[in-house]
Amino acid sequence: MIILGLDPGLGTTGWGIIAAEGNRLRHLANGQIKTEPAMPLPRRLSNLYEALGEVIRAERPDTAAAEEVLGNSNAQSTLKLGQARGVVLLAAATAGLVIGEYHPSTVKKAVVGTGGAEKRQIQAMVGVLLPGVKLSGPDAADALAVAITHAHHLASARSLARRQR
Amino acid sequence: MIILGLDPGLGTTGWGIIAAEGNRLRHLANGQIKTEPAMPLPRRLSNLYEALGEVIRAERPDTAAAEEVLGNSNAQSTLKLGQARGVVLLAAATAGLVIGEYHPSTVKKAVVGTGGAEKRQIQAMVGVLLPGVKLSGPDAADALAVAITHAHHLASARSLARRQR
Repeated sequence: MIILGLDPGLGTTGWGIIAAEGNRLRHLANGQIKTEPAMPLPRRLSNLYEALGEVIRAERPDTAAAEEVLGNSNAQSTLKLGQARGVVLLAAATAGLVIGEYHPSTVKKAVVGTGGAEKRQIQAMVGVLLPGVKLSGPDAADALAVAITHAHHLASARSLARRQR
Repeated sequence: MIILGLDPGLGTTGWGIIAAEGNRLRHLANGQIKTEPAMPLPRRLSNLYEALGEVIRAERPDTAAAEEVLGNSNAQSTLKLGQARGVVLLAAATAGLVIGEYHPSTVKKAVVGTGGAEKRQIQAMVGVLLPGVKLSGPDAADALAVAITHAHHLASARSLARRQR
């Protein structure tokens, strides 16, 4: 199963693709989509949508996952993030992908083993779990972490289904 | 010139279309796009995008306008609004429309004459400025108010350009 992980942002959206075969994970690709701050917002959103659509058409994932976003006290930055996230979810939905959403602490727990892990620890563990991966940047690492979380979640669900048979 | 006004929201997005001929305004259509709260978010965003795309294809506006959004202290509601707004701006941008953005107080001033006007006053003035209009609801009224603001702005810009010649 090919899994697309997403870390949405208006300035930078991270994406990462892994293959999950049983309990084995393999890195396929990762990258970061940047939009130009000087451009009008609708143009930035449209560029993000197009670029992510190209990634999806090229890599043909079976499913997608994104971190749940909590927002923060800065309404303007929450709004920016929301606008980018809406377009990112739309790109995946338009491609027919079902999108799993995971709380940040669930992602940290799945990848590092503790819900309070730091960004640096996540990046290090993504490197351990996906040997040989070359990270395009921290947002791509976060995207791969979400993809790994989704893979674990799907594997547990399958294992549970087998046991209940 | 055919102007599309937009009042984005995840639950309800208002839209309104007017024709501006010189300083004369004429109502063409208005409506509200609702998404089902029980549906997964990506599906809601996708339904909103599709429905707005249909409106744009049917009404063929020349330009679009949306209110600037300030967000508020509730991060979750700001995030929801942001996600819907991102998709609404994308739908307009994908159709090749340039989108004017106006501060809420600019819209109030253009329609009612004072930046501190209440929602009810805006609805009443939209009815006065567009005689015979049947409003689909308060969000459609807000969308028409933004379209009227955009029409005024474009007319002033043209008049200024003439005077400077």
